[in-house]
Amino acid sequence: MSATGTLHGVGLGPGDPELLTVKAVKAVQSAPVIAWFCKKGRRGHARTIVDGWLKPERIEAPLVYPVTVEIPFADPEYNNSLAAFYAGAAETLAAHLEAGRDVALLCEGDPLFYGSFMHLYVRLKDRFRVSIVPGVTGMSGCWTAAGAPITWGDDILTVLPGTLPREQLAARLAATDAAVVMKLGRNFPKVRAALAEAGLLERAIYVERGAMADEKVMRLADKIDDEAPYFSIILVPGQGRRP
Amino acid sequence: MSATGTLHGVGLGPGDPELLTVKAVKAVQSAPVIAWFCKKGRRGHARTIVDGWLKPERIEAPLVYPVTVEIPFADPEYNNSLAAFYAGAAETLAAHLEAGRDVALLCEGDPLFYGSFMHLYVRLKDRFRVSIVPGVTGMSGCWTAAGAPITWGDDILTVLPGTLPREQLAARLAATDAAVVMKLGRNFPKVRAALAEAGLLERAIYVERGAMADEKVMRLADKIDDEAPYFSIILVPGQGRRP
Ligand SMILES: C[S@@+](CC[C@H](N)C(=O)[O-])C[C@H]1O[C@@H](n2cnc3c(N)ncnc32)[C@H](O)[C@@H]1O
Ligand SMILES: C[S@@+](CC[C@H](N)C(=O)[O-])C[C@H]1O[C@@H](n2cnc3c(N)ncnc32)[C@H](O)[C@@H]1O
Repeated sequence: MSATGTLHGVGLGPGDPELLTVKAVKAVQSAPVIAWFCKKGRRGHARTIVDGWLKPERIEAPLVYPVTVEIPFADPEYNNSLAAFYAGAAETLAAHLEAGRDVALLCEGDPLFYGSFMHLYVRLKDRFRVSIVPGVTGMSGCWTAAGAPITWGDDILTVLPGTLPREQLAARLAATDAAVVMKLGRNFPKVRAALAEAGLLERAIYVERGAMADEKVMRLADKIDDEAPYFSIILVPGQGRRP
Repeated sequence: MSATGTLHGVGLGPGDPELLTVKAVKAVQSAPVIAWFCKKGRRGHARTIVDGWLKPERIEAPLVYPVTVEIPFADPEYNNSLAAFYAGAAETLAAHLEAGRDVALLCEGDPLFYGSFMHLYVRLKDRFRVSIVPGVTGMSGCWTAAGAPITWGDDILTVLPGTLPREQLAARLAATDAAVVMKLGRNFPKVRAALAEAGLLERAIYVERGAMADEKVMRLADKIDDEAPYFSIILVPGQGRRP
């Protein structure tokens, strides 16, 4: 066993290459194998973030998602196809680890916060040594871009995936002090409707590609179209105790 | 105005000096003034984290809290005393900024997530240029220490300050998929009672000083005493969609 490699789950932060931690830079520079998730035909955002940090000699292992046109989550086919993909990806990495090569699996934001890394982690952690490098989350990058303190004093923060039904989003939003809504994309119009229903349109901030070169920040009330990319988020900053 | 300095709010991450971002290291190495909050007679945890990173030539500006024996939050005296302290601290930093010196204000974790930095930020942001470096939060450091993915798929995450009343904590905990309870300290016995009431004792994980040299991780159910330091947290990992 001592000759097998270590799997490093490396959080890269929200997008700016300078927001990698020192530990993350060391991990991506020392592992002989660099792996990351991406969609077919795309380079992958995680891989792009580390471009300037990588050493020339390395093995690259892109893990290409099968689901290009998204199947609805509820469809069992979605789950089966993803499960098969994660099993295959785990074996790809296991082959390197068995051969004694450390693998750095690149993770956007923090690896253990809604991350794809987690699906390989649970499949490999009992077979190999795993070391995880926490990262700055996408939401931290976004509230920093907005210059908006997210929680004060006794504020309760609720983090909501935009994939939830509108009624549930509206009820949760109405019952919290501060909120972050992730996974917007095509859920954006529904999420905006939920914020309106909760009376929060005026307080909400929309951030696109936070901490990346082309980041955009605006009041949600000023956003007139219905388009939101994968890397976008809505923030409702808290208004708690402020001596 | 162009001759005034910039205030850098620098997130240092959860404790390990290698978990500073590259941007944070540059900020603390280039600012001529290093400021941080601390309690009377203590060096301050933030200052200790950056010890190995600082350049020898620098001005140090500790900002010493007045509230040593804590006054209850509800007492107006608490608010007044803190407000006077933040006003004075802001003027200390303003004097350096007016003189054209950049100031790096050290922040544990992320500066805009329940951070003391925010109180100086709101007081200084309209007078000086402010640049904020997001950081790895304490909670990320803690769920990494526990090897516990915190949210999966559509999980809702609720972040609760342990300062809230027990009934409110119990109700919130019972109604979420995943939870993080911060600010334990002397709130610990109350928080544990709330978790028991919500039927979550078995799922909860207790982390002390996550990402620091002497970190401790245990099932909350295995913690028998009532003592929890300032740097401790409780995690209830989500159990969402896992293809
Ligand atoms: C599957 S989650 C992964 C979260 C990631 N592990 C983290 O710690 O931020 C992806 C969602 O995170 C949010 N996100 C992550 N980084 C972002 C960024 N730089 N700007 C805007 N949104 C971001 C978006 O809502 C996106 O749909
Ligand atoms: C006033 S809040 C500041 C949070 C900080 N700005 C952050 O981003 O994590 C302080 C609380 O954060 C939690 N915390 C922060 N760092 C921690 C660590 N390394 N280990 C355990 N708890 C931590 C504790 O619950 C502590 O009482």
